[in-house]
Amino acid sequence: MYSHQPPAYGNSHHHHHGSIHSTHSSRYARQADYGYQAAPPPGTDPTLWAYFTGVDTDRSGSITANELQQALVNGNWTKFDLDTVKMLMSIFDVDRSGTINYNEFAGLWKYIQDWQNVFRHFDRDHSGTIEGHELSEALRSFGYNLSPDLLRLIEQKYASAPVSGYGPPPGITFDRFVRACVVVKTLTESFQRHVSLSNFATLYVHLWFSLGLIYEQFMSIVLSAP
Amino acid sequence: MYSHQPPAYGNSHHHHHGSIHSTHSSRYARQADYGYQAAPPPGTDPTLWAYFTGVDTDRSGSITANELQQALVNGNWTKFDLDTVKMLMSIFDVDRSGTINYNEFAGLWKYIQDWQNVFRHFDRDHSGTIEGHELSEALRSFGYNLSPDLLRLIEQKYASAPVSGYGPPPGITFDRFVRACVVVKTLTESFQRHVSLSNFATLYVHLWFSLGLIYEQFMSIVLSAP
Repeated sequence: MYSHQPPAYGNSHHHHHGSIHSTHSSRYARQADYGYQAAPPPGTDPTLWAYFTGVDTDRSGSITANELQQALVNGNWTKFDLDTVKMLMSIFDVDRSGTINYNEFAGLWKYIQDWQNVFRHFDRDHSGTIEGHELSEALRSFGYNLSPDLLRLIEQKYASAPVSGYGPPPGITFDRFVRACVVVKTLTESFQRHVSLSNFATLYVHLWFSLGLIYEQFMSIVLSAP
Repeated sequence: MYSHQPPAYGNSHHHHHGSIHSTHSSRYARQADYGYQAAPPPGTDPTLWAYFTGVDTDRSGSITANELQQALVNGNWTKFDLDTVKMLMSIFDVDRSGTINYNEFAGLWKYIQDWQNVFRHFDRDHSGTIEGHELSEALRSFGYNLSPDLLRLIEQKYASAPVSGYGPPPGITFDRFVRACVVVKTLTESFQRHVSLSNFATLYVHLWFSLGLIYEQFMSIVLSAP
């Protein structure tokens, strides 16, 4: 049975080789070139450290958004969208330095591994992309019982190519699947928080005295979503 | 003075060379190779036809999303985001064929030219990207008087790199600037339509009998936005 929660941000780490396209096979050459060897922190997992230094191509000791985007590939070898990379950075760049250090990378790596397991689980036909009915099943297993109209919107918005009038939309690649699920979670939680604050009294006030405030809240919610 | 409307979808066309990275200098070689010469429709503008055939790299007579993404570049030579390409296709693929034919291309080309003029106008410091205060000015000129909080959200969401805790967010590239403006327009219009349908009676009903319906409308609005 599949867990009923989408991957959460945590600290423990697994080490399957996944969609991080590690360049670590060539990194020893670079080390020799630059005579540089960053010391791994004590107690470091050597495999994870190897992945980290593979992604950190300029050997600066931390990973930039650009390095992350170069390293992350979908099953069809397309790069992750900038918006997905920014979303991952915003989750795991805990100290807001603008880059991902080794400790932050451990969390990011675990998160991507977990999502890959989710993706593989729901990609029933092993097509490498998530189709409409697979998306419905994934979201339902996370507790989101969305209407067919909403599911169609999500399927089209996150499809990896434009939708033509004929036939079903193209499938959703890994990066956009993760983004779609995080967006649904974020919007739903924002909405629930918003509604729980509402009552008749505030609604009267909103409606007649501060429509601008509802607008503000609505736009904030939408634009805060990844 | 600058016009107070963002570019609209129209039919007339100008022909400045812009951010369409036309490969038409090499197309004569390909023509010779394949012995293929698609006839331009009667009355066709030869310059625009040259751009069209330059973008249509497989000479199929229509432009796919992939061909469009290969052809469209920002000032810093980064490719347009898939989401922006999908947005453009959804606006200009009028017959919903999944591709852009020559007539549809004329509209798309004009639209991009118009947006480039807007972009150049508001990129006051000629940095090649739109910074926060330039974004505020652009949106204000279109009639959107957004709060500083909302403007900061938009600036961060559409920045061309993640935002670190230090210093201002990175600027917004051309493709993401267009997307940001279209999203603000779409969300605002959706919200206004939504509010104008609301009144006390329906609000009572919504609140106590069909919160699911508010949720549905809210999510529809957000997910319908490009």
